[in-house]
Amino acid sequence: MPKLVFVRHGQSQWNLENKFTGWVDVDLSDKGKEEAHEAGKKIAKAGIEFDQAYTSVLRRAIKTCDIVLDESGQLWVPEMKSWRLNERHYGKLQGLNKKATAEKYGDEQVHIWRRSYDVLPPLQDASDEGAAAQDRRYKYLDPKAIPGGENLKVTLERVIPFWEDQIAPKLIDGKNVLVAAHGNSLRALTKYIENISDDDIMDVEIATGQPIVYDMNTDLTINSKTLL
Amino acid sequence: MPKLVFVRHGQSQWNLENKFTGWVDVDLSDKGKEEAHEAGKKIAKAGIEFDQAYTSVLRRAIKTCDIVLDESGQLWVPEMKSWRLNERHYGKLQGLNKKATAEKYGDEQVHIWRRSYDVLPPLQDASDEGAAAQDRRYKYLDPKAIPGGENLKVTLERVIPFWEDQIAPKLIDGKNVLVAAHGNSLRALTKYIENISDDDIMDVEIATGQPIVYDMNTDLTINSKTLL
Repeated sequence: MPKLVFVRHGQSQWNLENKFTGWVDVDLSDKGKEEAHEAGKKIAKAGIEFDQAYTSVLRRAIKTCDIVLDESGQLWVPEMKSWRLNERHYGKLQGLNKKATAEKYGDEQVHIWRRSYDVLPPLQDASDEGAAAQDRRYKYLDPKAIPGGENLKVTLERVIPFWEDQIAPKLIDGKNVLVAAHGNSLRALTKYIENISDDDIMDVEIATGQPIVYDMNTDLTINSKTLL
Repeated sequence: MPKLVFVRHGQSQWNLENKFTGWVDVDLSDKGKEEAHEAGKKIAKAGIEFDQAYTSVLRRAIKTCDIVLDESGQLWVPEMKSWRLNERHYGKLQGLNKKATAEKYGDEQVHIWRRSYDVLPPLQDASDEGAAAQDRRYKYLDPKAIPGGENLKVTLERVIPFWEDQIAPKLIDGKNVLVAAHGNSLRALTKYIENISDDDIMDVEIATGQPIVYDMNTDLTINSKTLL
């Protein structure tokens, strides 16, 4: 029976500083690295042997992936990095302090941006400083595919092709898969595989550094879900 | 002009203990990690931007690869891990202390095993404790392709298909490539691309943690070679 394991990365430097992060390539804090080591130890204790690992192109998720694999003695497992597993793009909010943003736009507006399924944040222009369009890692991506800002709906729409093309075929083939990613890319996957409604998904919190283990059937139905 | 960069991993735990390592998946020592960080800083200072990274399925090389990419701000670069870039398999000598081996077999014999191009070490059987044939990471490899022990000639014969199928096409396409690997897999690549004779290659030493940068032409001739 194939296992699908999600690990959400732990604390980053900008979590510490209470900033909107999104696609900004912020590093894990020491606490975030420790969370990844703990997750890896839990995977090792559970004896889960991966066939394939997937992560985003953001270092906080990649390092989490590498630490989990290394702690469980399987750093050799093939690892694919894809922009499709990136965190939700937070548009012009990226880099802003959350408290200052609430003071500027009001708590209500910020709550809507954070908690509504289909409201977009203020969009970044391709010419804005630090915009993804200027980042070498996206140079082979159709410029029209590079978001200026995303809600969970849009995030889900670019995550699911990765599920369909990469993750699902491995599970159908009986393989064990690790996905080390972000709060919203994992929330999108969770919504999709658990058939959670647009309203309910916004209340689903995915804990950082705590492996979520799905025992799947090869028809991609879920047999059981366990938090390690 | 495409750049090809080799980084040989630094000190491992078994280097410290003066043991034959080969395909045993020994970790880097703290000094070895430090060597990788230094290599990464040199890459960053030289402003080299990679399109693809390749490493072995042994953690001392994989970690070196990851640290180099991370230190130079490009951990997102695609990374492929292959057994073809593994260290030379040292057969039954793996795990033995080098000094004790010399006392048992004589200095002359050990010198021949270490320095001859085409003499094989005593071969491991697939049923020996810790044999690669029992290791999950090689389970999709034709058992006939799993070595019981290698000389540099045999190492080269399994490294070059990886050069031909993966590395060379990237360079022909103008891409910059990082290869983070081992003394003998890098020696094999060096012999092949620099057309070094069977005799001369055994005197070529590849320094640990020091990036070797080839400015290549897209016909795979070498324009220049620089040690960082």
